[in-house]
Amino acid sequence: MKLILGNIIDAPKLGELRIISHGAIELNDDGIITNIYKDIPSIDGYEVYDYKDNLIIPSFVDMHLHAPQYPMLGMGMDLPLLEWLNTYTFKTEAYFSNKEYAREIYKKLAKDLIDNGTTRVCMFSSLHTDSTIILMEELEKAGVTGFVGKVNMDRNGDINLQETTKESIDETYRFLKECKRFKYLKPIITPRFTPSCTNELMAKLGEIANENNLYVQSHLNENKNEIEWVKLLHPDVKYYYQSYEKYGLWKSHTIMAHCVHLSDEEIKSMKDNNIVVAHCSDSNVSLVSGVCHVRELLNNGVWVTLGSDIAGGSQLPMYRNIQSAIKVSKIQDIITNGKDKFLSVSEAFYLGTTSGHRYFDNSNGFEVNHKLHALVIDDSSFTKPVKELSLQERFERAIYNMDKSNIIHVYSEGRRIK
Amino acid sequence: MKLILGNIIDAPKLGELRIISHGAIELNDDGIITNIYKDIPSIDGYEVYDYKDNLIIPSFVDMHLHAPQYPMLGMGMDLPLLEWLNTYTFKTEAYFSNKEYAREIYKKLAKDLIDNGTTRVCMFSSLHTDSTIILMEELEKAGVTGFVGKVNMDRNGDINLQETTKESIDETYRFLKECKRFKYLKPIITPRFTPSCTNELMAKLGEIANENNLYVQSHLNENKNEIEWVKLLHPDVKYYYQSYEKYGLWKSHTIMAHCVHLSDEEIKSMKDNNIVVAHCSDSNVSLVSGVCHVRELLNNGVWVTLGSDIAGGSQLPMYRNIQSAIKVSKIQDIITNGKDKFLSVSEAFYLGTTSGHRYFDNSNGFEVNHKLHALVIDDSSFTKPVKELSLQERFERAIYNMDKSNIIHVYSEGRRIK
Repeated sequence: MKLILGNIIDAPKLGELRIISHGAIELNDDGIITNIYKDIPSIDGYEVYDYKDNLIIPSFVDMHLHAPQYPMLGMGMDLPLLEWLNTYTFKTEAYFSNKEYAREIYKKLAKDLIDNGTTRVCMFSSLHTDSTIILMEELEKAGVTGFVGKVNMDRNGDINLQETTKESIDETYRFLKECKRFKYLKPIITPRFTPSCTNELMAKLGEIANENNLYVQSHLNENKNEIEWVKLLHPDVKYYYQSYEKYGLWKSHTIMAHCVHLSDEEIKSMKDNNIVVAHCSDSNVSLVSGVCHVRELLNNGVWVTLGSDIAGGSQLPMYRNIQSAIKVSKIQDIITNGKDKFLSVSEAFYLGTTSGHRYFDNSNGFEVNHKLHALVIDDSSFTKPVKELSLQERFERAIYNMDKSNIIHVYSEGRRIK
Repeated sequence: MKLILGNIIDAPKLGELRIISHGAIELNDDGIITNIYKDIPSIDGYEVYDYKDNLIIPSFVDMHLHAPQYPMLGMGMDLPLLEWLNTYTFKTEAYFSNKEYAREIYKKLAKDLIDNGTTRVCMFSSLHTDSTIILMEELEKAGVTGFVGKVNMDRNGDINLQETTKESIDETYRFLKECKRFKYLKPIITPRFTPSCTNELMAKLGEIANENNLYVQSHLNENKNEIEWVKLLHPDVKYYYQSYEKYGLWKSHTIMAHCVHLSDEEIKSMKDNNIVVAHCSDSNVSLVSGVCHVRELLNNGVWVTLGSDIAGGSQLPMYRNIQSAIKVSKIQDIITNGKDKFLSVSEAFYLGTTSGHRYFDNSNGFEVNHKLHALVIDDSSFTKPVKELSLQERFERAIYNMDKSNIIHVYSEGRRIK
């Protein structure tokens, strides 16, 4: 048994911080939490990891990012979504037909995720099956866990980035078969978004998802032009989400990135179907897509998580995306004259940690019977305060000021991987 | 004579990037630029600094920050302006009566500014004259140049942070006398903001500024409650700015931080009087103050610069504040349905570099007859792109992705200080 000592801070519920000064987390040999102590017990018989006055917080969860867009991070940011897709994104993703290049980039991405404290992801790869497997290999080696999707797109792509419907389906089956070898990574069905997939492909992906009991991830209501385009492609549906629903892709645990422009009916359907919103505030702003009404979603009981949306978003570290979610919600507060109250630090932290972890194991913060996903934060390099800070102040300061240099240890699936 | 070689990128005008691939900047022994070469001349007789394929860009300018708030960076961010001032800010600033503490914090601040590429500042100290001189000593040692103000506040402060009117005036004279010893730092008259200063003090500060030909810095129209408060304090004026104007503090080169809530008449007066706006987007959002209409100010010919507003803002590095200005302007673009077009990367870069440098020496980017303020950026650690990038792409990527580790050399007042 292991005993991990330090100042424990997590967010079991939205808006609720649990702070244990100099407490202990007990782990069994499988890395599963067996106890959380407010007072450190006798250490006899334990393998002890004493992190002293450092902070122990849950690791971050990135519920939406595009691995093959990592090389274009911070480029083309003056362009709107659809132009940005055609000028930069599709051309960059097309290079991932090259397996050596994919290996190099994905190795760096996996390392950068861990160095920045992200241990669980729901990730888009490109449409290339082999490179997607390489991505999963590199993530697993580095200690990043979660879901990865080979992207499906059989229309409206680029000359170098599109499949036939048959290729898309065949490669999806091959992808699912290849995925069986991974311990900590699982496949997820990933139609890029409605404009990228023919009805035939969408129907087949719905079948595959339901027959194999697989989760689904895609994009929804990011940008007004995109919404109009979906209306043209699916004149039979009233709302964009119904283009997923009619093919069985709108179901419990389906992750929808963005959800910027939503009506009351759509919000209700999200709640009723246990849809997961991956809120990507940095991306929504960078691509001038709009401001997501996060508070309204939360008030309506919708499951909201955070995504970096690399490379529509320009920041891989989830602590920066937590900051971004706070700041964008503050502007929404300004716009609505206080009706949509901004996200507090602890609320945004909940969205970027607990709310994401729940997708994987239904845990509510650090919890007995769940594998440990945690970071050890050394905040001693921050500017010396005028008086001793409370743990809550140290926590808030860390969320705003931290850099990867402050993340001194990382636990993923109960293993210390850094 | 020195010759500095590399890829030179600056912004001589708003929206205009000048890009010189493998060019050269010639400096005389005083660090003054004597020539800029598109083709590298014969290096005979020069002391050569060959930065090879690295980028050489102007250093950043922070036109508004509060040095004694550095210890509270990232704390109390869930509070609105006036509450935040009373709970955190005044209490933190009061500690700067302690000269040893001031020395320790200001030494770190000066180093962090240079490490992050900021070589020119217009800065608020606290009301403590001795600590203000210590601040200037530490800035000068580190290579940070510009203007520093001892803050004046003789009402509405904290029990531990307020002067009598006489103390405030006497200490201002002592401050001005002590400042004479500095080579690269100059004093600036700094009434905290209208609610902090009695009419008597404001009148005297106006006199001092005009008799000694000194510039002025303060705050304007940050928050709606603050504006209402000024109306109560000065029932004789229609607009907040007139509370400065009537005492001779509203004049060419007066820096006004924030300027979030402005009428057409106020914008016109800013233009007519050559007022400088220090736009602090990160702070305005963090304190839920509002969204500054930067595009409208620019369209009306107002002089706009950027400020980090530490610690209302939570980010000291100006590359992050440039990003913030872009992102907040994108939300303003969304709010106004495209009427207020967002700031492009090169426009925001202009505001954070050239527009600030002009305050000090009227230069337009790197320019002959002006001392060099520059950064050497090594972008080789960024993710390998799919194809060779243009210098403009490398520049944009650097603005979004850089960290202090990418700033490998810093020139300030013509001297290489890092």
